Amino acid sequence: MSGTSSFVENAAASLALVREQRPRVHCLMNTVVQKFVADGLAALGAIPSMTSAPEEVEAFARRADALVVNLGTLDEERRTAIRLATAAARDADKPWIVDPVHCDYSPSRLAFARELIASRPSVVRGNASEMKLIGELSGALKIKTGPVDELALDRHTIRVENGHPHMAQVTGTGCLSGALIAAFMAVEADRLKAATGALLTSGIAAEIAAERSSGPGTFEALFRDALAALRPDDIVANARISHAEG
Amino acid sequence: MSGTSSFVENAAASLALVREQRPRVHCLMNTVVQKFVADGLAALGAIPSMTSAPEEVEAFARRADALVVNLGTLDEERRTAIRLATAAARDADKPWIVDPVHCDYSPSRLAFARELIASRPSVVRGNASEMKLIGELSGALKIKTGPVDELALDRHTIRVENGHPHMAQVTGTGCLSGALIAAFMAVEADRLKAATGALLTSGIAAEIAAERSSGPGTFEALFRDALAALRPDDIVANARISHAEG
Amino acid sequence: MSGTSSFVENAAASLALVREQRPRVHCLMNTVVQKFVADGLAALGAIPSMTSAPEEVEAFARRADALVVNLGTLDEERRTAIRLATAAARDADKPWIVDPVHCDYSPSRLAFARELIASRPSVVRGNASEMKLIGELSGALKIKTGPVDELALDRHTIRVENGHPHMAQVTGTGCLSGALIAAFMAVEADRLKAATGALLTSGIAAEIAAERSSGPGTFEALFRDALAALRPDDIVANARISHAEG
Repeated sequence: MSGTSSFVENAAASLALVREQRPRVHCLMNTVVQKFVADGLAALGAIPSMTSAPEEVEAFARRADALVVNLGTLDEERRTAIRLATAAARDADKPWIVDPVHCDYSPSRLAFARELIASRPSVVRGNASEMKLIGELSGALKIKTGPVDELALDRHTIRVENGHPHMAQVTGTGCLSGALIAAFMAVEADRLKAATGALLTSGIAAEIAAERSSGPGTFEALFRDALAALRPDDIVANARISHAEG
Repeated sequence: MSGTSSFVENAAASLALVREQRPRVHCLMNTVVQKFVADGLAALGAIPSMTSAPEEVEAFARRADALVVNLGTLDEERRTAIRLATAAARDADKPWIVDPVHCDYSPSRLAFARELIASRPSVVRGNASEMKLIGELSGALKIKTGPVDELALDRHTIRVENGHPHMAQVTGTGCLSGALIAAFMAVEADRLKAATGALLTSGIAAEIAAERSSGPGTFEALFRDALAALRPDDIVANARISHAEG
Repeated sequence: MSGTSSFVENAAASLALVREQRPRVHCLMNTVVQKFVADGLAALGAIPSMTSAPEEVEAFARRADALVVNLGTLDEERRTAIRLATAAARDADKPWIVDPVHCDYSPSRLAFARELIASRPSVVRGNASEMKLIGELSGALKIKTGPVDELALDRHTIRVENGHPHMAQVTGTGCLSGALIAAFMAVEADRLKAATGALLTSGIAAEIAAERSSGPGTFEALFRDALAALRPDDIVANARISHAEG
């Protein structure tokens, strides 16, 4: 373990910056989780937008400070929208993140996930089985979320241990993680620090919510409350991370 | 300030009528807020329907007592559905309301919002920046919602001060306002009185919910509880409005 | 009344099996209720998937242990997806259930519901007015849900009396019932027993949630908590059913 304190301090400072700057995050999400993700971003202090109509997705992506793309409900129109939005983000040099949801369910999803990753996103985030299939990334920060989140970039590996099992019973917590990472990247240029900050924020808010909840339903409501109430000091007091280099 | 008491009394009476008559409200909403709006209408005592498939939207709009149209996620199929549904509402002489969501984000949204407004809706409701772009309306009741809601028709201006800042952290509260206004218009022919009643109901329910909540997540659940429990007397006791003429 | 105890005991045993085996349930749901249904299945212990893109729905349906099909938001693409998914379920001999949502709203919905029913689903579930229009089913278990749920197959009729009026104020509880029935059919081959188990589970969880809630919003969150916490013993202690034969 080496040098975790700079990551924790940066996470606290980035949370304060998100609250202050209120970055716009454009989200290409499946319809299942759209409101959950929008509400989570709003609780954090960011400004979400969600349209995936090919006619207007470029305008929204250009106007945003960061972009998060989720494969879910993958039809041809969605593919077109994703290609337009990610091209706009690249052109405007905005950070963007790919979430290869269920790329382990069908070959066409995996092929499309790989196509996106070849166009060099800032970050790729998935669960263990998705990230195993995705394999090596050329240049992207690779994040595997689960009971412990693992972030890998070049020779650095960060492990974030905060979180709670209730998260796995709430549809969309993984998608929301991606959106929170996008919000943090909008205020912090170092991707590894930004993503660590987002996952600490989410994991610590989940721990606070779980203490007050009686199950996954009340947890979901209290998680949003905790995201909205979390202070930079709470991150410093509660962070459980490790950092390996080499 | 002049003559607010008749608006408040009418609001209380209209709430009682909505509970009794259970109007059907057809909603063309973006996918993000559909369940939130349907649940809010159901909590109020109205009966929501939500389909936007061009093949059946006319039948649903005709069967409904009022229609609310929201631009969100604006693709070509949605435009077709909106044109069919608003034509059906006009033919059947049903009240309908337009919510020009994000018309300040792209020229194509603004153009479509203006096309809809030219076909003479009963009400147009938006936030401050949307309503500024929309400009003058010929004949529609113009409603700008925010910390204070402003309703303008002919020489009358009503300001509704009830509400709570948590509403801005819950995705869809603006959309739900539009749907509640539609429900009230289904039982009260005077648009200005109907809309005032809906916004008082929503704003007072929000105040009750905020007192019991610990943040935006629990607020959302408690807001639905408060909408379902609100009595006409609560409106009389808590209304904060002003009325200017001239 | 005859032989209800075997149904109750089987319901308790099936709940334990769902928790243990974690069946995959693929859901073709309208966009309004997708997250609510996914979260309800996850609270029960099942694994939901929700895509309705024609390009991939077959792969998801084949991979699942049971399928639930809901007519809501019925456009041509959705019809194609439904035909592909139900054919995949039949080929793989997986249980599947049809929910003819709003088939009483338009002739095209009713016609499509009848087409699906002709392809021999395991179960058809609807509310009173939907099931009246659907009429006789050849071979499917017929379930009418409402204040009392009625299940009819061959000469057997089961009535499940557990539940709470708040369920009618939460959009999607009927759709979730269908999904829970699918989850129980994945672990119990006797359809009548499986569906009885699912409706007892849902109805008893609703009663527990209603006791702690202050309205439909908090009820929804607490209902998920209660679904997650319900033990087989709770079913035995609280079941209120009757069984008629002949």
